[in-house]
Amino acid sequence: MSGNFTAEIQAALDEKTKPQGSLGRLELIAAQLATIQETLTPQVDRQRICIFAASHGIAAEGVSAYPATVTAQMVLNFLAGGAAINVLTRANGIELRVIDCGVNDLESPLPPTHPSLRRAAIRPTGTHSFLDAAAMSEAETRMAMALGAGEVNEAVADGIELLGLGEMGIGNTTSASALAAFFTRLPLKDLIGRGTGIDDPGLAHKQQVISQALLFHSDCAQPLERLAAVGGFEIAAMTGAVLEAHRKKLPVVIDGFISTAAVIVAHAMEPRVLDICIFSHCSAECGHAALLEYLKVQPILSLELRLGEGSGAALAMPLVKSAARILSEMATFSTAGVTDREAP
Amino acid sequence: MSGNFTAEIQAALDEKTKPQGSLGRLELIAAQLATIQETLTPQVDRQRICIFAASHGIAAEGVSAYPATVTAQMVLNFLAGGAAINVLTRANGIELRVIDCGVNDLESPLPPTHPSLRRAAIRPTGTHSFLDAAAMSEAETRMAMALGAGEVNEAVADGIELLGLGEMGIGNTTSASALAAFFTRLPLKDLIGRGTGIDDPGLAHKQQVISQALLFHSDCAQPLERLAAVGGFEIAAMTGAVLEAHRKKLPVVIDGFISTAAVIVAHAMEPRVLDICIFSHCSAECGHAALLEYLKVQPILSLELRLGEGSGAALAMPLVKSAARILSEMATFSTAGVTDREAP
Repeated sequence: MSGNFTAEIQAALDEKTKPQGSLGRLELIAAQLATIQETLTPQVDRQRICIFAASHGIAAEGVSAYPATVTAQMVLNFLAGGAAINVLTRANGIELRVIDCGVNDLESPLPPTHPSLRRAAIRPTGTHSFLDAAAMSEAETRMAMALGAGEVNEAVADGIELLGLGEMGIGNTTSASALAAFFTRLPLKDLIGRGTGIDDPGLAHKQQVISQALLFHSDCAQPLERLAAVGGFEIAAMTGAVLEAHRKKLPVVIDGFISTAAVIVAHAMEPRVLDICIFSHCSAECGHAALLEYLKVQPILSLELRLGEGSGAALAMPLVKSAARILSEMATFSTAGVTDREAP
Repeated sequence: MSGNFTAEIQAALDEKTKPQGSLGRLELIAAQLATIQETLTPQVDRQRICIFAASHGIAAEGVSAYPATVTAQMVLNFLAGGAAINVLTRANGIELRVIDCGVNDLESPLPPTHPSLRRAAIRPTGTHSFLDAAAMSEAETRMAMALGAGEVNEAVADGIELLGLGEMGIGNTTSASALAAFFTRLPLKDLIGRGTGIDDPGLAHKQQVISQALLFHSDCAQPLERLAAVGGFEIAAMTGAVLEAHRKKLPVVIDGFISTAAVIVAHAMEPRVLDICIFSHCSAECGHAALLEYLKVQPILSLELRLGEGSGAALAMPLVKSAARILSEMATFSTAGVTDREAP
């Protein structure tokens, strides 16, 4: 993007009938959307959230407050329309799709077909426990990334203008914390939280599991290797989605700790992915604030959410739409016949 | 509200298919709405913002970056649909009404009738400069408060479930700062900001004007007297609206510094008004954070907005709708067949 166009965007914002800069961070989002879409009248009315779901072998180590079977049960809840993300997307006019990236549904079978479900399990039993093995093979990791990239291309083909990324996977804060530690080198204790709500002994155990896993995988140096080692199918899919969205210039709204961990991986592969990322909220999950700070980005909301599913993205997407509309629809001082302040 | 019903609300939230408390402050808003509406299935889909507009005599003292004529010009901009609040209400499905509480429209005449304008000027030339006289008589102040109360009753009659309060009035941060100082007794410098964007000498002048006015009016002891002394027609109207909304159990969304100052006055008359107030955002205007802290309330957004017009309210209202829907629409663990965590 040329400096000229950046100046043009700023001039367009400053001609609107409001004191300069008085819409605060909404103006920054408007400018980002204009830059991505290369227009002074950005539009993000057509919105979709993709929930990438997968089972995690690491859940067998007792790192979550919920049993691993809840992953498939929650996917069924998404399909029935009863989960928080269903409510939030309906309330805000956002389409919802669920992508089975590798959900173990032995106990709670998912339907073979469903209008809002894509069954594309990379491995139907979920990842291996990464305590003493790679969670995924490198080939599987690439397949999961391609799955996420495919969702971006499908969204673009469907005319979607803003894509939110959400996830479901019991055990995936453990995977996200391990990835975060691998890439940021921040102290482990700042990156490991209570997930769905483990108690103090559970937290200590989770820290111990992650320490042990990081030691086991300490040779991994390349981003893809690290992702394969301690990631998950849904995290790899989101990493692929972010990279593809950058190539296709589709703005994406990032949800909480897990999806930000996917951005951390994508960012290690291509730092410019941040150009198309809008960070919806800072979650209550310990570690999210640290990751946002590491990326030097500021989220829109701070509501102490810690649910995942794309719930923070769904809440922020109306604000992103509003930001685009400011630039696209507001009158200027001259067209509205409003007296501007005298030049200082 | 009985403690029993509070416990019922919490139980209803905790039965939803999500880790307990994982929707953070959204759950607190949901509980507040349930308490106001006395139902476990609150609904705030029908939303309206009222912009109360008025001219301020104090603007003649050079306290704003914009000329006083901009008040009427911006009302015309609201009617033409080109202002920020038009864009934000359209984007978020919120009705918009403008109430002329006393706009001096000599240079920019307002239409006698317009579908979204209510012409109800208490005094068509606006308030007196409160530097050395009361801004309004007590009778006028009561009339302005009744005007705001009337808007609440009209909203209720129209089936509105959530009312946002916004304002327009060049000079009204000066009035709001004076009121804030009167009621909170906080240091003046913490309560006076740049409004639409005055420079350093302008800020010093504004502080001097307010100090002088507070000295002149220092005998005023009763809330109504103080409101009459240094308030404005739109501020008094919002004070009346908040008091009436409390009586009618209508939840109201408060915008920025000016509308929070109106709540400060209403709160001095009836502390329980806070029960029905939802604070949309913490504005960049110096003084707003102090007022929110004084009231011990936490706003939903913090986007460095400083525009007024109800813009922060319009951005927060979709989140309030989402909060209500969580309680009204989400499935429970038992109905969705999702395994809850074991009791700790």
